[in-house]
Amino acid sequence: MERNEKIMMASDYQNSAHPAILAAMAASNEKAMPGYGTDEICAQAKEHIRRACDCRHAEVEFLAGGTQTNAVVIGALLKPYQGVIAADSGHVSVHEAGAIEHTGHKVLPLQGKCGKISAAQIEACMQEYEQDDNHDHIVMPGMVYLSQPTEFGTLYSRKELEEISAVCHRYHLPLYVDGARLAYALAAEENDVALSDLARLCDVFYIGGTKCGAFIGEAVVIPDPHLIPHFFTIIKQDGALLAKGWLLGIQFDELFKDDLYMHIGKNAVQYADQIKQELVKDGYSLYFDSPTNQIFFVIANDKLETLGQKAVYSYMEKYDETHAVIRFATSWSTAKEDVDKLCQIIRETR
Amino acid sequence: MERNEKIMMASDYQNSAHPAILAAMAASNEKAMPGYGTDEICAQAKEHIRRACDCRHAEVEFLAGGTQTNAVVIGALLKPYQGVIAADSGHVSVHEAGAIEHTGHKVLPLQGKCGKISAAQIEACMQEYEQDDNHDHIVMPGMVYLSQPTEFGTLYSRKELEEISAVCHRYHLPLYVDGARLAYALAAEENDVALSDLARLCDVFYIGGTKCGAFIGEAVVIPDPHLIPHFFTIIKQDGALLAKGWLLGIQFDELFKDDLYMHIGKNAVQYADQIKQELVKDGYSLYFDSPTNQIFFVIANDKLETLGQKAVYSYMEKYDETHAVIRFATSWSTAKEDVDKLCQIIRETR
Amino acid sequence: MERNEKIMMASDYQNSAHPAILAAMAASNEKAMPGYGTDEICAQAKEHIRRACDCRHAEVEFLAGGTQTNAVVIGALLKPYQGVIAADSGHVSVHEAGAIEHTGHKVLPLQGKCGKISAAQIEACMQEYEQDDNHDHIVMPGMVYLSQPTEFGTLYSRKELEEISAVCHRYHLPLYVDGARLAYALAAEENDVALSDLARLCDVFYIGGTKCGAFIGEAVVIPDPHLIPHFFTIIKQDGALLAKGWLLGIQFDELFKDDLYMHIGKNAVQYADQIKQELVKDGYSLYFDSPTNQIFFVIANDKLETLGQKAVYSYMEKYDETHAVIRFATSWSTAKEDVDKLCQIIRETR
Amino acid sequence: MERNEKIMMASDYQNSAHPAILAAMAASNEKAMPGYGTDEICAQAKEHIRRACDCRHAEVEFLAGGTQTNAVVIGALLKPYQGVIAADSGHVSVHEAGAIEHTGHKVLPLQGKCGKISAAQIEACMQEYEQDDNHDHIVMPGMVYLSQPTEFGTLYSRKELEEISAVCHRYHLPLYVDGARLAYALAAEENDVALSDLARLCDVFYIGGTKCGAFIGEAVVIPDPHLIPHFFTIIKQDGALLAKGWLLGIQFDELFKDDLYMHIGKNAVQYADQIKQELVKDGYSLYFDSPTNQIFFVIANDKLETLGQKAVYSYMEKYDETHAVIRFATSWSTAKEDVDKLCQIIRETR
Repeated sequence: MERNEKIMMASDYQNSAHPAILAAMAASNEKAMPGYGTDEICAQAKEHIRRACDCRHAEVEFLAGGTQTNAVVIGALLKPYQGVIAADSGHVSVHEAGAIEHTGHKVLPLQGKCGKISAAQIEACMQEYEQDDNHDHIVMPGMVYLSQPTEFGTLYSRKELEEISAVCHRYHLPLYVDGARLAYALAAEENDVALSDLARLCDVFYIGGTKCGAFIGEAVVIPDPHLIPHFFTIIKQDGALLAKGWLLGIQFDELFKDDLYMHIGKNAVQYADQIKQELVKDGYSLYFDSPTNQIFFVIANDKLETLGQKAVYSYMEKYDETHAVIRFATSWSTAKEDVDKLCQIIRETR
Repeated sequence: MERNEKIMMASDYQNSAHPAILAAMAASNEKAMPGYGTDEICAQAKEHIRRACDCRHAEVEFLAGGTQTNAVVIGALLKPYQGVIAADSGHVSVHEAGAIEHTGHKVLPLQGKCGKISAAQIEACMQEYEQDDNHDHIVMPGMVYLSQPTEFGTLYSRKELEEISAVCHRYHLPLYVDGARLAYALAAEENDVALSDLARLCDVFYIGGTKCGAFIGEAVVIPDPHLIPHFFTIIKQDGALLAKGWLLGIQFDELFKDDLYMHIGKNAVQYADQIKQELVKDGYSLYFDSPTNQIFFVIANDKLETLGQKAVYSYMEKYDETHAVIRFATSWSTAKEDVDKLCQIIRETR
Repeated sequence: MERNEKIMMASDYQNSAHPAILAAMAASNEKAMPGYGTDEICAQAKEHIRRACDCRHAEVEFLAGGTQTNAVVIGALLKPYQGVIAADSGHVSVHEAGAIEHTGHKVLPLQGKCGKISAAQIEACMQEYEQDDNHDHIVMPGMVYLSQPTEFGTLYSRKELEEISAVCHRYHLPLYVDGARLAYALAAEENDVALSDLARLCDVFYIGGTKCGAFIGEAVVIPDPHLIPHFFTIIKQDGALLAKGWLLGIQFDELFKDDLYMHIGKNAVQYADQIKQELVKDGYSLYFDSPTNQIFFVIANDKLETLGQKAVYSYMEKYDETHAVIRFATSWSTAKEDVDKLCQIIRETR
Repeated sequence: MERNEKIMMASDYQNSAHPAILAAMAASNEKAMPGYGTDEICAQAKEHIRRACDCRHAEVEFLAGGTQTNAVVIGALLKPYQGVIAADSGHVSVHEAGAIEHTGHKVLPLQGKCGKISAAQIEACMQEYEQDDNHDHIVMPGMVYLSQPTEFGTLYSRKELEEISAVCHRYHLPLYVDGARLAYALAAEENDVALSDLARLCDVFYIGGTKCGAFIGEAVVIPDPHLIPHFFTIIKQDGALLAKGWLLGIQFDELFKDDLYMHIGKNAVQYADQIKQELVKDGYSLYFDSPTNQIFFVIANDKLETLGQKAVYSYMEKYDETHAVIRFATSWSTAKEDVDKLCQIIRETR
C-alpha cells in the first residue's frame, strides 16, 4: 500500500473509491450496457435508495458532482424571476464560481449560525418580502437550500428540519437539501435525521457519493416524482447526463444494496472526534464544535508552517492578525495510523 | 466473461473501460490525491497529450462528457451576440437538448454533405453576413464547429481542414473540432489528419475518451494557452469540474503514455468494414460509406423486427414508406466473435 | 409641413405618432402620475383593449418594442428545456440578433410558405418529436409563434388560425401571435380574423403600436390572466418595465377609446394596393401578393440605383444574378401625394 | 393646468417631460426618419453630449430605461465568470428584480456608507480575492458599479472618484457609473464632479433622462469607443433597441444643445433643501443628509397616516417599532407652490 509522506487530511475527496465499488466496477467491465442510465443496475440502485428512504415512488437520478447537481436542481425548481434562500456560508453562495447566477438566479443569503439558518429566519425573510410594497421589483424567494451536514460540519436536528419544512410549505417554497457529506451526518452520534426524514420533509435532496465512498456521483431524490417534469432532459441540457450512466448506478448499487452508506462514515466521525480531543487537550480552540468529519480550529500563524511540513490541511480564513482558521477532514478512507500520526504532529506543534 | 445474449452493436459507448485503464485506476485507489486536477498524474497525462499533438504549450483540460464539453467550450469562445456555425447534422445542432442555446447562443446550421461542411460554405455564410445591410440585427457567426469523424462517421481530409482553417482565420472565427470518436478517425485507413494537424489547424479541439476506451472523459486541447483566460473557473461555473480530477488524468495518462489511443480504434474500423462488406454482399444499401466505426444502412421495415430479435441496433430515421435507416457501431471493445455472429445474422435476414 | 426630398417608403416605423396621440401626451404633460403603469389611464386603456377583444378578464401589459416583447413573452411561456416553433422567416428566427437564444431557448424553424406555417406542419413536427426514440435528448417544442400579418405581409385566415389553435391545444403548445403590424391586418379587405378571434384562439398575442400610430409601445394580451404568474416581475427583470408606464397607457387609450386602431391602417392598405397595381401595370413581378401594407417585388439590378435616387426602399435579398427583391411599406402616416409621386417614379423607371 | 389634490412628492419620475422636449417632439412629428438611431438628430445629440463631456471620440448610445441600461452595460462588460462589485444598497443589488443575475452574473455587494463605497473597500475586496487560495472556485470581481447620486441621494466627490478610478485601473476593473439622477448631482452645491470628470474617470457611465426632464431615455457614454465591440447588436439582442431611435435623440438633443441638462435640476435641489430645513425645524431627524433631490427622514408611525392623507411619499423601511423611514423627492417638474404646501403640511403634522 503506497502512502504519501505527509499526512493528507485536507479534504474528504482525496481518495478514489471504496474497495467494494472498485470491485463492482471491475466485475462489470466487460458487460455491454444500454446508455444514459436506462440499464438494470441503475434501476436496481434506484430501488435500493427508494427503500432506504422509505419512499417508494421517488424519482432518483444520478449526477456526477455537487456543484453540477446544485445548479441543475436549483435551475429546475426556480421560475426565472425567483432566487434561492441559503445560508451566507452555503456552498451555492460562495464556492461555486457563480454557477447558480449562471443559471440566471440570485442567491438570497441569510446570516448563518455555524452554517445553519432557522425556520424563523426564513419566515422573517418571507414576511419582509410580502410586506414590501415594491416586492414586484425585487427577486422573489422561490426555494430554500440547506446542506446537511453544513459546510462547517454542523447538523440540523429533526426538529429544526421539521420547522423549516413547515415554513417552506406554508410559503410554497420547495426545500432542497445538499447532502454532499450526508454519510457523515448519518454516522454522527447526535444525528436524529434519517434518510426517511429527509424524504418526508424535503422536496428534493441529494445523497452525496463523491465524498462518501464513490469515485464520483450524487443521487438526487425527488420524493414526489411529478415535481420536476422532464428532469431527464434538463440534466441532458445542462451537460450533466453521462452516456455511461451505469457507472453511477454500479456505485450507488454498491453503497445501498447492503446499507454500506449507512455506516461508511462511522470511522471518519470517530477519528474526527479523536483529533478534536487532541486539539483541545493541546490548547487549540475549535472554531465550530462540529459533530461530523470536519474539524475547524484556530492556530497561530507561526505554527502554520511547521504544521504544513508534516500535514496537509485546508486554509479557511484569517482569524485575527496573528491567527488563522484551518480545517482537517477525515473520510471513509482515513486510516487509523494516519490519525494517530496526525495527533502526534499536533502534540509536537503545541 | 459474461456476454449479453443479443449481439449489442448499437453504440460505441456500451462498455466501461479498457482493461489497462481499469488496472491503473485499481492501482491508484489507495493513494490520497490533491483535488480538482492539480495532481501529478493529470500533469503527466497533459504532457503526454501535448507530445502526441506536437504542441508543447497547449492548455489541456479534462471534462466528463461530450455535450458538457461542447457547451463549455462554445460558451467560453463566443461573445454573447455570436452564434456557432455547424453542420445541420452536427451534435450541437440536434442532439444536445438545446445545451448550446441554454448558454445563450444560436446554432447557425449549414446544410451538410454526409455530415460535413466545406470551406466554401463557411465563406459564403460570412459573405452573406457581411453584405447584409442589416447584419447588426442578426446573430454574428462567431466560431465554427466540426466533428471528426462526423456524426455519420465520415472524415475531413487534411486538405479540407486546411481550407476550413484558412477561411476561419481570415474571418477571425475560432475553429473547434469535436473529437468524441477521434480514435476511430486516427485508425481509419483513409485518414490523413494527425493530432498534430488538429493542433496546427484548430483553435480548440477535444480528444474523446468516453467512446474510445475510457470510462468517461474528454481532453480539451487549446494550442494557444492564452486563448481562453480563466478556463478553469469557467469549467467550475458550468458544474463541469470534478473534485477528483485525477480520475480523468489516470485514464488519459493510460491512453497516451504508450500511444494506446493511436491504435485503440484499429479493430473497430476493421470490424466495421467486415460488417459493411457483408451488408453490401447481402444486397443492403449503405446510407453513407463511412470509413470509421459507424455503419449506416437501409433496411426494409419488415426485416427490422427479425433483426432486432438477434441484434441491438440504433434506429436513425425513416427512409421511405417501407424502409428505415439504422446504425451499427463497433468500438474498441467489440469482440471478433460478435462481429462474426452479426454477419451471420445479417445473412439470415437477407 | 416639412417633407423629405426623396419619397421615403422603406418602412412603417418612419413617423413618430398619430396627431391624436401627440395631443393626448401634450394634454397630460403637467399631470403628476404614479409609476410603473399603476395609473388610471393605463387601467382605462387596458379596459378598452379588453372590450375591443371581447375578452373581459384578459391581462394586458404594455411594453416598449417588438423584439423586447417577443423575448419577454417567449421567455415567460417556455420551460428551460423547450423551444419555440416558428416559420423560418419569422422575426424571432432571423431578425432579433439572437434575442430568443439569449433567453436560453432554441427557435425551431418550419419552412414557411409566403411567411406562413400550417397546422399540418405543426402536427407533423410534434409527431416527429414524439415518435423519436431519443426525444429526451432533443429540444422539446414548447409553444408556437406566428405573426399576423407575417413578415411578408400575408395573413392567416380565421380557418387557418382555428386549425393551428386546435393542434396547439391538442399538444399543449401555447399559441403566441406577434401583431407588430396588426392594424394593417385588421384593415385588409381579405382579413376575417378579428381581435376577438385572436383572443379566442391564442394564449398570448400582442397588438403592435410602434408601427401602427403610436410613438412606441406594444400591448400584450393574455386572455387567461392566470397563464403567466408574476408577469409584471418578469417584465421588470427583463429591463422592459418603463417607470413612466402612463406614456404607453395614453397611447393605447387613444388608439382604442374610439376604435382608432380598427381603421388606422385603412389608407395604408389602399395605398399599398395602388402601388402594387402600378408595379404590375409597369411589368414588375410581385414577390408575394400580400394584402396588407408591405409590397415585395422583383427589380432589375440596373434599375435599383435610378429608383434609389428618388425613393427610399428596403433591400430584401438577391433574386438572381441580375435581379433583387425590394420592399416598399406604406403606413398610417403615408400621404396620398407621396403615393402618387412614387407611382410616377415607378412609371419612370419602367 | 390640472393638479392632483394631494401633494405628489413620492418620486422624481412622476411627470412626463420638460416643455421644450414636448415641443421638439411635436415639431418633428410629421418628418419621416430612418430607423434605429441612424438619423441626424441622434447624431447631433451625441455630438452635443461628447462636447458636454469634453470627450470627442466617445461612443454614445440611447436606451429606454435604467434597469435595462444597467443590465445591458453590465452584461456587455463582464466575462461569464465575473461579477459586479456594488454597494449593498445599489440599484443593481436590490431593486431590479434580479435583472443582473438574469444575465448570468453575481452582484458582489460591499457594505455602503450612506449608499457609497470607497476605494479602500474595493481594494480590500480585490486583495481578498487574489489572496484566496481557492479563488478559481469563486466569482471573479469583474467591474465596479457606482451610482451618482447614490440611491440615498449622496454624492461621490471628485477625489473619491479619482481614488476609486485608480484602484479600478490597477485591478483592471471597468468602472461604471449609473447616473439615473445625474442632473441633480450636477445641480448640487457641494458637487465637484463634472461630466468631463466622469468621462475621464469612468469606463462607462450613463446620463439619466427619465428622471431628469425627458419622457424616457438614458444616454450611455463610453469614452473609449473601442471598449465594447458590437454594442449596437448587444442592445438589439437585449430587446433594448428602439425602432424609432430618433425619439430618444430628440430628447437628448434638447437637453444638451443649450446645456439645459446642466441646470434642469437646480430648482429641485433648492426645493429639497427647503423641505429638509422645514423637517429639521419641526423636529424630524433626517436619515441621510443628502445634498441632492431626495429627502429621507424618520417619522413616527402614528403620523404616517395623517401625512399620507395630504401628501404622497415613498415608504422606505421600518426604523424601529414606532418609527419609519420615508422619502420625498423633488424633481425638475416640482412647483414652488407644492413645496410651500408640503412645508405647511409638515408643520401641521409636527
